[in-house]
Amino acid sequence: MTVPLIYHLLESPLSGADIERRSFEAIDREAPSSPFSPDEWEVARRMIHTTGDFEVVQSLRFANGAIEAGINALRKGVPIYTDSNMIRSGLSLARLKAVCPDYAPERLRCHVADGEVARLAQESGLPRSFFAVRQAQSVLDGGIAVFGNAPVGLMELSRLIVEEGVRPALVIAMPVGFVHVVESKEEILELGVPCVALCGRRGGSPLAVSVVHALCTLAGRNQDMQDSQLISKKGDGL
Amino acid sequence: MTVPLIYHLLESPLSGADIERRSFEAIDREAPSSPFSPDEWEVARRMIHTTGDFEVVQSLRFANGAIEAGINALRKGVPIYTDSNMIRSGLSLARLKAVCPDYAPERLRCHVADGEVARLAQESGLPRSFFAVRQAQSVLDGGIAVFGNAPVGLMELSRLIVEEGVRPALVIAMPVGFVHVVESKEEILELGVPCVALCGRRGGSPLAVSVVHALCTLAGRNQDMQDSQLISKKGDGL
Repeated sequence: MTVPLIYHLLESPLSGADIERRSFEAIDREAPSSPFSPDEWEVARRMIHTTGDFEVVQSLRFANGAIEAGINALRKGVPIYTDSNMIRSGLSLARLKAVCPDYAPERLRCHVADGEVARLAQESGLPRSFFAVRQAQSVLDGGIAVFGNAPVGLMELSRLIVEEGVRPALVIAMPVGFVHVVESKEEILELGVPCVALCGRRGGSPLAVSVVHALCTLAGRNQDMQDSQLISKKGDGL
Repeated sequence: MTVPLIYHLLESPLSGADIERRSFEAIDREAPSSPFSPDEWEVARRMIHTTGDFEVVQSLRFANGAIEAGINALRKGVPIYTDSNMIRSGLSLARLKAVCPDYAPERLRCHVADGEVARLAQESGLPRSFFAVRQAQSVLDGGIAVFGNAPVGLMELSRLIVEEGVRPALVIAMPVGFVHVVESKEEILELGVPCVALCGRRGGSPLAVSVVHALCTLAGRNQDMQDSQLISKKGDGL
């Protein structure tokens, strides 16, 4: 019987943070050259990290100043609408609070499992995700909308944007699957709102979460840069 | 301005269940020929459904009667250990209860966010996933172990199997990433326990969840078959 692998780890211990750092080093080392800006690459590499797959970012699109809009919205602590409880539970409150201390569980909104939403879906024969978005209209106006599952919710958001003037700060458009998915992402990309989309059929909760977390990293890093510029300016002034 | 896409859906409404059925029809239609048995294909097609990606099942492996062992364990209502709260929140209690009415939130166990686990990780400089598995040793013996994130937890489970005689009913081995991931799956596949593994770097919470849900489907379907055989036998006997 060979020695269990865990002993190799215990011989030269790595923390979770160490493993994450090594993972990103591996990704940067192995990544093919990409068309992304440095800030976009921060998002893309976290999506690669989350899936273990370099291919996934081939259909990644950024529209209408998505990254800057997302960073600004996170700094203001705007509410975050999620289309699944998996996304809600995958979002790190610690990362969000580091960007804006106002973040708290009640700013992360998911209505897909609400009783009222289930009742309306049952009565109408339409998906719950459709009514979950309707339930959240006031939050979606000015909030960050995160879709990693059903395209029907995203399509209803597009209607709210077109017909009712709803303006999300950022849309993360990563529903997944085989029915209505491809066109739901093409539609949102045409509406002039800040958007990070994974075109095609692929998507999912962890990918959507990874975009939010990458934006948190960028918000922290850019804040550090602003702070250090401020300090060096102060220094210059003295 | 073109008409929002959602109106096309509203013209010929589809429920969530309709969309799922159409999705699986698309997957079955487009899937390349596969080496899987019909029961294995039920697992594989749900993994494709969850990622929007046919490629993902190329490195899918079933070992030591995994599917039958998983179905039997679910029917007994054994506890389910998950390595992330995303998996725990993604698991459908309704699907689990349909297989065994004893399933309830407290049978779905996740320790990665426990205070004690965080404290031990902090003190030792090792990942929380390592201590989360140690915390769950009694549940892992006879339970279903679901890994979709950190390989270190899976490696510690392998040690418990080798050195302490722990025997999970089924291991779903789908940690994701770039450090220790590939070898953690190779190790568990060699230990003689029932296992569904996604070899290589890919994995993730939704994939791990999709395996449990596919096993629920199979448990229900095989139950229906047993019931109808029973009925037809009864009929023959009369």
